[in-house]
Amino acid sequence: MTAQQAAVRIVDGDRRALARAASWIEAQTAAGRELLKAVFPQTGRARLIGITGPPGAGKSTLVDQLTKTIRARGERVGIVAADPSSPFTRGAILGDRIRMQDHHADPDVFIRSMATRGKMGGLAAATLELALLLDAAGFNFVLIETVGVGQDEIEIARLADVTVLVLVPGMGDDVQAIKAGTMEIADVFAVNKADLPGANRLEDEIRNMQSLASEEGRREAAPLRRVVASEGQGIDELLQVIEHVFAKRSREQMRTEAWRFRLREILQDRLAAALPESELNEHAMRIAAKIEDPYTAVDAILAGLLK
Amino acid sequence: MTAQQAAVRIVDGDRRALARAASWIEAQTAAGRELLKAVFPQTGRARLIGITGPPGAGKSTLVDQLTKTIRARGERVGIVAADPSSPFTRGAILGDRIRMQDHHADPDVFIRSMATRGKMGGLAAATLELALLLDAAGFNFVLIETVGVGQDEIEIARLADVTVLVLVPGMGDDVQAIKAGTMEIADVFAVNKADLPGANRLEDEIRNMQSLASEEGRREAAPLRRVVASEGQGIDELLQVIEHVFAKRSREQMRTEAWRFRLREILQDRLAAALPESELNEHAMRIAAKIEDPYTAVDAILAGLLK
Repeated sequence: MTAQQAAVRIVDGDRRALARAASWIEAQTAAGRELLKAVFPQTGRARLIGITGPPGAGKSTLVDQLTKTIRARGERVGIVAADPSSPFTRGAILGDRIRMQDHHADPDVFIRSMATRGKMGGLAAATLELALLLDAAGFNFVLIETVGVGQDEIEIARLADVTVLVLVPGMGDDVQAIKAGTMEIADVFAVNKADLPGANRLEDEIRNMQSLASEEGRREAAPLRRVVASEGQGIDELLQVIEHVFAKRSREQMRTEAWRFRLREILQDRLAAALPESELNEHAMRIAAKIEDPYTAVDAILAGLLK
Repeated sequence: MTAQQAAVRIVDGDRRALARAASWIEAQTAAGRELLKAVFPQTGRARLIGITGPPGAGKSTLVDQLTKTIRARGERVGIVAADPSSPFTRGAILGDRIRMQDHHADPDVFIRSMATRGKMGGLAAATLELALLLDAAGFNFVLIETVGVGQDEIEIARLADVTVLVLVPGMGDDVQAIKAGTMEIADVFAVNKADLPGANRLEDEIRNMQSLASEEGRREAAPLRRVVASEGQGIDELLQVIEHVFAKRSREQMRTEAWRFRLREILQDRLAAALPESELNEHAMRIAAKIEDPYTAVDAILAGLLK
């Protein structure tokens, strides 16, 4: 199957071609890039929804429930779980996927975990590409779930059109810190496990931070919905608010901004891959031996790399 | 005060010169770079210890207790708190610093929070630079505490000679996920709040993952110590194991490896800063309008940037 053939079959709804192409993309092969170029004109119809948040927030359960709700409307759902590059994750992936087993037999749900080896580089690009592929394949929603909690996963969630930040009550005494790096990325807040004590307090904290941010003129407060994902409570309302956020933006401007951000992510991946390993190693030895200082080394490496 | 004057004074133990130079470094000014070049030959004597872990793990309390223990031996401690770039962090910084107020009057303890604005880029470089400055200023230990929990903060902790991963029992149902991305970076595990139920289970989980990793021949199991940081329990033992790990490595090889990693981080910062904004924007518009596909755009931008 060539990339061109795959492109035709995928747009046609061939699930086996889709699964195979997803593997090309995960492996970041030339065939995957060919394919994406071919199907790119067919993209732009799906809603790409990022689901992110700290561990224990119940992201997988929420994705599961959103999938049920979207399916009940008769729309098709693609799910991409972006997973940090670690052999330790196997258990986590398995656990997540077991929870999703209800949907495995459903031809209108496609689930794939993305992982990379070694340095994180490549995961953002591969995740976005798989989301675009699912878009081209006619899935109405693509849910991009981050399994880890690193800055990279947060950035991956931001590759979506709308980013949902999932938080839960009672996350420990420096919950302030985790919110710090992630609050701004939320287009929608989902307060999960809202039946637990502390939900009011969490909501108050979010509101306080939002009013602080709005005083400084930074942005409009993101809407917040309470859910109990494990019981399916509040899911309809959450989906409505996600769609509302999606709809009220200027579509063209949103797409341009999304692409500016996406290009930046892909370029950073590519630049990291372009760093000359052996040169880096030589400089590292010289610095460790105090023959050279790190600034001189960095300048020398950049001079050899950049125009 | 010129950079050269500052360098002399700092190596001499002038605290005001040090505070001023720390501000240069935080602002990433040319004077800061000059200064670092000048003091670089004086570095390499301090032990740089990274303290990282999820929110609620008690990292600040642990740093506070380690500081007390090191001071009781008569050694000097520098602390760099690497904080994600967010206006929301103000509260967190304040909270952390209040906990450290016992040490504020101590001339042999120097505390500084590092933050950057906008994109995370720059925080890793600035944190490392401040740690090197404190090294040159004669602090025997530099504790690099990450306040946030993103991948970037984990990488920042890894800039240290020895990285301590702080975990606590009962972190929620996908604790697997947070461990996944971070387990490998631990040179030492600190199981904090070890008086809580679940400490045994957490220790078992860590051991299981370690034996899995060791079967695959990846690395020697990192030592683990239980502490109750809030009570000062187990801190001596933790410090001993940190020093043991530090001592048993080949110093030269360790430094080379550390510098290879550090150079990579600094270079990625610099490359991200070199991306041409207006060109990125133009391509983003073309992609949004479907005149161009993202691969063609990325290739064009890289062709203009790289040699």
